[in-house]
Amino acid sequence: MKIFTDLTLPEPLFAQLRAAVTPHELLRSTQSSASVLVELPPDPLMDESEVVLGQPSLAAIVRAPKLRWLQVTSAGITRYDTPHFRAEARQRGFMVTNSSQVFDEACAEHALAFLLAQARQLPTGLVTRCANSEPAWLALRNRSKLLRGQSALLYGYGAIAKLLAAMLAPLGVHVTAVRRTPRGDEGLRVITPAEAEALLPKTDHVINILPENAASRHYFSAALFQHMKSGAVFYNIGRGATVDQDALATALTQGPLSAAWLDVTTPEPLPDDHPLLHLHNCYHTPHIAGGYREELESLITHFTTNLKRYLADQPLLDRVM
Amino acid sequence: MKIFTDLTLPEPLFAQLRAAVTPHELLRSTQSSASVLVELPPDPLMDESEVVLGQPSLAAIVRAPKLRWLQVTSAGITRYDTPHFRAEARQRGFMVTNSSQVFDEACAEHALAFLLAQARQLPTGLVTRCANSEPAWLALRNRSKLLRGQSALLYGYGAIAKLLAAMLAPLGVHVTAVRRTPRGDEGLRVITPAEAEALLPKTDHVINILPENAASRHYFSAALFQHMKSGAVFYNIGRGATVDQDALATALTQGPLSAAWLDVTTPEPLPDDHPLLHLHNCYHTPHIAGGYREELESLITHFTTNLKRYLADQPLLDRVM
Repeated sequence: MKIFTDLTLPEPLFAQLRAAVTPHELLRSTQSSASVLVELPPDPLMDESEVVLGQPSLAAIVRAPKLRWLQVTSAGITRYDTPHFRAEARQRGFMVTNSSQVFDEACAEHALAFLLAQARQLPTGLVTRCANSEPAWLALRNRSKLLRGQSALLYGYGAIAKLLAAMLAPLGVHVTAVRRTPRGDEGLRVITPAEAEALLPKTDHVINILPENAASRHYFSAALFQHMKSGAVFYNIGRGATVDQDALATALTQGPLSAAWLDVTTPEPLPDDHPLLHLHNCYHTPHIAGGYREELESLITHFTTNLKRYLADQPLLDRVM
Repeated sequence: MKIFTDLTLPEPLFAQLRAAVTPHELLRSTQSSASVLVELPPDPLMDESEVVLGQPSLAAIVRAPKLRWLQVTSAGITRYDTPHFRAEARQRGFMVTNSSQVFDEACAEHALAFLLAQARQLPTGLVTRCANSEPAWLALRNRSKLLRGQSALLYGYGAIAKLLAAMLAPLGVHVTAVRRTPRGDEGLRVITPAEAEALLPKTDHVINILPENAASRHYFSAALFQHMKSGAVFYNIGRGATVDQDALATALTQGPLSAAWLDVTTPEPLPDDHPLLHLHNCYHTPHIAGGYREELESLITHFTTNLKRYLADQPLLDRVM
């Protein structure tokens, strides 16, 4: 069996992956993509492959007749998450998995880091040197808020939200998750987007973990921001395209938001003159929420685990199509 | 009954406190202390009082013959934590409580914020703007480490450590607490300082929550730092005096530490030319770990709760002597 990958790996890790898939043949793209956001031209090597690990373009998938299983090397699957592609996968009978398990823990930690940095006013605190009882000291303490007793809405109920809800529990945060179809088995309060709108005026922390697709684009609109509680904080570790960024800038300058913490934007990075870059109450990290030192090793492990399942005809992990 | 306080309160809160203690008489110091770290001269008003709320000097306590109960308005009780003062309290039969419950939650959140800011590399991430796959982006992701599976030692097992251990549990951190006399009923692994020394070479996060007293001064010595694991991170939300700061600077520049996060130092703030201020891997907040918007209200509530218990001859909360 031939396995194709366009994942960029240092040589030792590539050798590790090749050893792990032996006796199957590992074909390496000559045009490896370091970024999951840039589409590569089709690679003829992929045409021969039954299994693909990476971020192939739609054009490459269309002309890969032997494809039975695609494992996407990110958690996001925006490129493939269209009715047309889903229909093609169904029709041709190939499966699609993502690498959600590889990144969910780091994403949840990143979101929690944002919430705590906000609560403890770290960006200001880390650059303030002052004596006990000085005005700057009193101001810092006065701007810090206990998370205990505050409320949070998690938009997008998946693996990250589950982990984050568990992390927020001992902090005493009242967490409610939002998903299109609550199932009742989630282990915490889950409501529909319509029900969430009624809760927004009372919610302290609005956490956006939505994936990007046709339904979620600009979901966080001017109207939604205007529903939010005065002083609320908005966090985005999903995808930038789910937010109307002009509306966000307005909500940060004219209210109701007191701050925003964004790991993702549209585009990435934002251009120099983008308003969100110049607001004192808008904090940015450069799309690193899922990243961590061992992420490539974890990607390999996750793939080889799934490969064993594939070869044994067992249900694949993180299957999305 | 007369109650004396040297706590600085805005007028509305002082009125609230006065109303809450009625019909007892509230005497207000004419020399209110905004800082818990500065001793005030004795106030004659205190001499008439049975109950004291604040941070009175030892000299003032010595000449306050009617004192039956002192509630200190901080969690730290360094000034009073001496064998001589403890003997005096025992002999004269007055009780001492602190305000630990008021600050423990904020302190635990602050410590957790430090751990997560380190794990997610927030100080660098918040000032890095880069595209996906650029060297700066890869470096940031590579410097981030999942907390799951890492180990932490909490030095000083009290209310803060209990809360912090509970907060670290869903993050998958292996937490061990250190106290002089483990009791076995702590609900997590608790070991002695001697046993902790053997664990240090394998510990990723060393969290100092020690109070300051004769036994803890410079407890974190050059020898102890040299026991620590290569790449370990040191956190201090206890008291600055528990650390040999020269040894800490050495451990940060020559190893084994990869970073330190300090909310407390000696003195506070550090002078401009202090080495710890100029290390890229030493992060400081200005003794704000316990602070939050409603802390004064909480101090009043905690005192009035204890006052009811005092008047009803019930055991006081947060009693330390």
